[in-house]
Amino acid sequence: MDLATIIGLVAGLTTIVVVLVMDGGSPAELFAHPSSILLIIGGSLSATIITSPLKVVLKLPQFIMQAFTTNKFDPKATIELLTNLADKARREGLLALEEDSKKIKDKFLQKGIMMIVDGVEPEQVTAILETTVEQMRARHKQGIGFFAAAGGFAPTFGIIGTVMGLISVLKQLDNPSALGESIAAAFLATLWGLLLSNMIYLPVSGKLKVKSEDEARNRYMQLEGIISIQAGENPRVIRDKLNAFLAPGDIKAAGEPAKAGVGKKAPAGNAQKAKA
Amino acid sequence: MDLATIIGLVAGLTTIVVVLVMDGGSPAELFAHPSSILLIIGGSLSATIITSPLKVVLKLPQFIMQAFTTNKFDPKATIELLTNLADKARREGLLALEEDSKKIKDKFLQKGIMMIVDGVEPEQVTAILETTVEQMRARHKQGIGFFAAAGGFAPTFGIIGTVMGLISVLKQLDNPSALGESIAAAFLATLWGLLLSNMIYLPVSGKLKVKSEDEARNRYMQLEGIISIQAGENPRVIRDKLNAFLAPGDIKAAGEPAKAGVGKKAPAGNAQKAKA
Amino acid sequence: MDLATIIGLVAGLTTIVVVLVMDGGSPAELFAHPSSILLIIGGSLSATIITSPLKVVLKLPQFIMQAFTTNKFDPKATIELLTNLADKARREGLLALEEDSKKIKDKFLQKGIMMIVDGVEPEQVTAILETTVEQMRARHKQGIGFFAAAGGFAPTFGIIGTVMGLISVLKQLDNPSALGESIAAAFLATLWGLLLSNMIYLPVSGKLKVKSEDEARNRYMQLEGIISIQAGENPRVIRDKLNAFLAPGDIKAAGEPAKAGVGKKAPAGNAQKAKA
Amino acid sequence: MDLATIIGLVAGLTTIVVVLVMDGGSPAELFAHPSSILLIIGGSLSATIITSPLKVVLKLPQFIMQAFTTNKFDPKATIELLTNLADKARREGLLALEEDSKKIKDKFLQKGIMMIVDGVEPEQVTAILETTVEQMRARHKQGIGFFAAAGGFAPTFGIIGTVMGLISVLKQLDNPSALGESIAAAFLATLWGLLLSNMIYLPVSGKLKVKSEDEARNRYMQLEGIISIQAGENPRVIRDKLNAFLAPGDIKAAGEPAKAGVGKKAPAGNAQKAKA
Amino acid sequence: MDLATIIGLVAGLTTIVVVLVMDGGSPAELFAHPSSILLIIGGSLSATIITSPLKVVLKLPQFIMQAFTTNKFDPKATIELLTNLADKARREGLLALEEDSKKIKDKFLQKGIMMIVDGVEPEQVTAILETTVEQMRARHKQGIGFFAAAGGFAPTFGIIGTVMGLISVLKQLDNPSALGESIAAAFLATLWGLLLSNMIYLPVSGKLKVKSEDEARNRYMQLEGIISIQAGENPRVIRDKLNAFLAPGDIKAAGEPAKAGVGKKAPAGNAQKAKA
Repeated sequence: MDLATIIGLVAGLTTIVVVLVMDGGSPAELFAHPSSILLIIGGSLSATIITSPLKVVLKLPQFIMQAFTTNKFDPKATIELLTNLADKARREGLLALEEDSKKIKDKFLQKGIMMIVDGVEPEQVTAILETTVEQMRARHKQGIGFFAAAGGFAPTFGIIGTVMGLISVLKQLDNPSALGESIAAAFLATLWGLLLSNMIYLPVSGKLKVKSEDEARNRYMQLEGIISIQAGENPRVIRDKLNAFLAPGDIKAAGEPAKAGVGKKAPAGNAQKAKA
Repeated sequence: MDLATIIGLVAGLTTIVVVLVMDGGSPAELFAHPSSILLIIGGSLSATIITSPLKVVLKLPQFIMQAFTTNKFDPKATIELLTNLADKARREGLLALEEDSKKIKDKFLQKGIMMIVDGVEPEQVTAILETTVEQMRARHKQGIGFFAAAGGFAPTFGIIGTVMGLISVLKQLDNPSALGESIAAAFLATLWGLLLSNMIYLPVSGKLKVKSEDEARNRYMQLEGIISIQAGENPRVIRDKLNAFLAPGDIKAAGEPAKAGVGKKAPAGNAQKAKA
Repeated sequence: MDLATIIGLVAGLTTIVVVLVMDGGSPAELFAHPSSILLIIGGSLSATIITSPLKVVLKLPQFIMQAFTTNKFDPKATIELLTNLADKARREGLLALEEDSKKIKDKFLQKGIMMIVDGVEPEQVTAILETTVEQMRARHKQGIGFFAAAGGFAPTFGIIGTVMGLISVLKQLDNPSALGESIAAAFLATLWGLLLSNMIYLPVSGKLKVKSEDEARNRYMQLEGIISIQAGENPRVIRDKLNAFLAPGDIKAAGEPAKAGVGKKAPAGNAQKAKA
Repeated sequence: MDLATIIGLVAGLTTIVVVLVMDGGSPAELFAHPSSILLIIGGSLSATIITSPLKVVLKLPQFIMQAFTTNKFDPKATIELLTNLADKARREGLLALEEDSKKIKDKFLQKGIMMIVDGVEPEQVTAILETTVEQMRARHKQGIGFFAAAGGFAPTFGIIGTVMGLISVLKQLDNPSALGESIAAAFLATLWGLLLSNMIYLPVSGKLKVKSEDEARNRYMQLEGIISIQAGENPRVIRDKLNAFLAPGDIKAAGEPAKAGVGKKAPAGNAQKAKA
Repeated sequence: MDLATIIGLVAGLTTIVVVLVMDGGSPAELFAHPSSILLIIGGSLSATIITSPLKVVLKLPQFIMQAFTTNKFDPKATIELLTNLADKARREGLLALEEDSKKIKDKFLQKGIMMIVDGVEPEQVTAILETTVEQMRARHKQGIGFFAAAGGFAPTFGIIGTVMGLISVLKQLDNPSALGESIAAAFLATLWGLLLSNMIYLPVSGKLKVKSEDEARNRYMQLEGIISIQAGENPRVIRDKLNAFLAPGDIKAAGEPAKAGVGKKAPAGNAQKAKA
């Protein structure tokens, strides 16, 4: 469960209910005019569906689920794993990673390690993994865009609803006693358009975007590690490289060796220095 | 037929009619003031036509058609085809693709394969195909831009119509009984501007954009495949590369060989590994 | 004459006049309050002039002319010309183009051909021609920006005019009979701000942008051709390269030889293949 | 303490209080309707929290602190330090910097110098330091985005509050004496939404952005220096390179030698010229 | 003096005064409610100061000066100078430019020529000069951003002022005779917010941006010339390269030799052709 989504949603709805009660009303008033709600939801979704490919519309439940669940990435464990693989590859050769690759659960990481075991050339590995990440982002962007578009359409349909309401009010000015009530009902459409857009559509779009960026960052970190292992780089340097993706507070103490085996790699580091 | 466009349009219009009826009105009221409708459609199209090259204005029916039809791309079949061609090219040489190229129906793909058969240099092939895709996108952008501009102008002309209506109302304040009706008529212009923009112009612009991006992605996938075939890359690696353009769920099982012939290519894969 | 600009402008003005007459008014009413018109035009132009360099302000008549005239580019003729030059250069050497270059009317193309005749190095030719195009775009952007800025300022000055009008109305509430008329006059300013922005400023800015992009595309096509001729590329490949800038419908049939002379170049194509 | 933040905040609040008193009111009136304030703060924060990852929400106090404190960078001292290190490295070799690196307080700079002492290859050093800076910027962007999003949501929740208020007013039109007071209370929500957004959220977002850009510029200057030291460049040229990051007024007089030791480096400069 | 800034400002203020008088009012009315003016100026500057680094706030008078003065660049003279230097460098070597460099008044150009005389490597010269220009642009962007931000805040504080005014009006509905006057006073705040933003803040921001781009273009032209001189390129080609930065009308006739000395360089041009 993504706690921020839940907390924000509960806090937001509570705020609105509390404010309504403080002002001497009741939440039921929001639902007093169902045609407004129908117009906002129907209108904003219809317009967005025209804008979208059918494939995206069918995946909507999936996108909503994503906004409510947390990404499963553990960058520190990934760095540990990649440094160990780098260490092993340097000692026993890339082919020695075949067994390990089968145990990796992350499909993307597994695919990458299997390709370097198979001897696919570095440019190809980079091209394949980069295309995978970029196409993933392109697919995520469709979901993000769906909710952003719906969030843009909803307030407009709110105004459409209010204008429609005011037009019908203006035609019946002969009954002044019901005038206030009718205008109030017309304004309900604006209220729903703004609420739906600002409490649901736009925040969900924002959350999906944040998650997509988070996943892309993790994927690029894995990609960097895979390519570095293939190039036979020093495991200590690889660890440094991958740690650069983390916030300073999340990095393990610099003095602490990645693994006992890495200590023995220091001469290799010197060899590399000589080469540089 | 593009189902999402149809569904969205039907759902949107139904919503509006249902809401009007629920509120005790009738759809006919929307058409009570034809000068408003004329102003919105005439004004938004006029302004957009000034903005556009004549060539784009003449292609408008074509652009609208596109929003209602589905793209004909089948990426999986294309990957199958390109992998088979790669396989054949590796066994029998690039010239052997001459016969196959004549059978390809996709003009872009055919052009690409014919160029590598003709021995055009890889940089030239890439340059020609990339220019073709980018110019196609530039042409698509004109259509997308037309509807986006119209979608931007329509609500403004709605407001222009309402302001024009209010001005004429304010000049005849001596007839208060008709006041409500006149103001209602003035607001109809705003309503039409918002509806036209949000149910037609902007969604059509969005759909054209999604289709253009989809086509560009497919073209770049084909380009990648053509260049890889010319470079004599391993068909298995080419398949991996092209699969990276698909969603994970759309990729065929990894274990499954691309073709019987590819199994024999494994030694080539090893040869390549040795070279790497 | 740029037909789209004329058609759009005439259609737009006609629409407004027709709508005014349909609603029982007359176009003369738009001019009933000259101070509003002065404020919108004076205000929007003053603000934009502060924003702009003096040089751009002095070139305004030129920019307006451009929006009303068509670009003179004929890409198909240019491709024909460049392919012929490429053919000649391959047969008789780059120096043989000296005579031809003197006959070219397009200054940019002529300059490019003269440089390759003079033996300027390819990187320099590219740098000089690219800088020329990019600086041209930068100059165009100033004109585009002028009208876009004016289009942004005009509705705001419309609102300023309306607010100024309402303030003076509110101070004279003691004469209710003239109230409607005065408020109507105040709203005229908003109307003029919106009309000027949406019928003149923004569409002209958009048209200038489309023209600038069209010219840049043609220039880059010429640049590509010039560089390819200098590199001694196959005329058939050059034709393919330049055709990639055109819409599919605008390209001459693929089977048709560029020139009788090109047929003889086929062996060269094979030679190139061998080299590749 | 960041003086500009403090000055701006105090000046802004003072202005509002003074204006309220000048108009014959009192600041207390702003707090007359607590439910409005609750709605704006609760609504804008709830919506923003849904948009954000939990990690960012928990770091909010930290982000706010940053807007009130000054960045600790002293570019001139850094240039002095890097030029001295370059000088020493050229005389005694990169290994001689080991002692100095331990004394550097800036973690980023220290890490960089330690890597070049350890003989990590230049591409790796650049990659690691660049990733560190870019990931830092990505983290900063989350905080910047939080306040920008809150600043976007706040006025909308202000309008939501006003619409909610107007709806409840319109339902009780039978008590005209309290009408003005009630509408005034409804408008308070708009006022709070605008004030919160324009005095707190947006300015804090802007300040965090300026600080992030400032830090990134300093980091890239350090990166440039580290790489140049590793490449064994002339200390005088390094000083010129780093000075290019400063405003002209902040650069030390050109004639003044970086250090006594640099004067002796002139021959090296000539050697380099010979090589060029 | 920057004429466009002066003309625009005078024309804008004249327009407003004339319109006020035409509508039967007087400019003094704009100043009838000083608290509005205080709120707009105080509020917009306070919010912008929070957004900005203190350094930028202190340089404000300098930024305003810049909007009123003209840039001192004379591109044609610079091209003349650089072509002459190129000519001399080719005849007598780069060291011969030492004397000339001391006479150059433009600090940036002088720095560049001195570096190539000193034998700094081309990549370093490019890096140092590019960093100088980019950091200059970054500093300019802070001033541009200050006025753009103030231009964004001012209308909002105008609305804040109007809402504050309306709230206090609504609380005193018991005095209907003063109602119009009070509402008018409330609207004055909106008027001032719009005027300040659209006549001062935004145009000044726009003018500073235009000047920054103009300076950057001139700097890049100088940079191009300096690097070309160092590379020992043909002065005629250098002149062509730099002319590409000018509008076609500003370039000296192509046939006219840059200098008598350049005519003798023609053989060098041929030598280069042979090399190409």
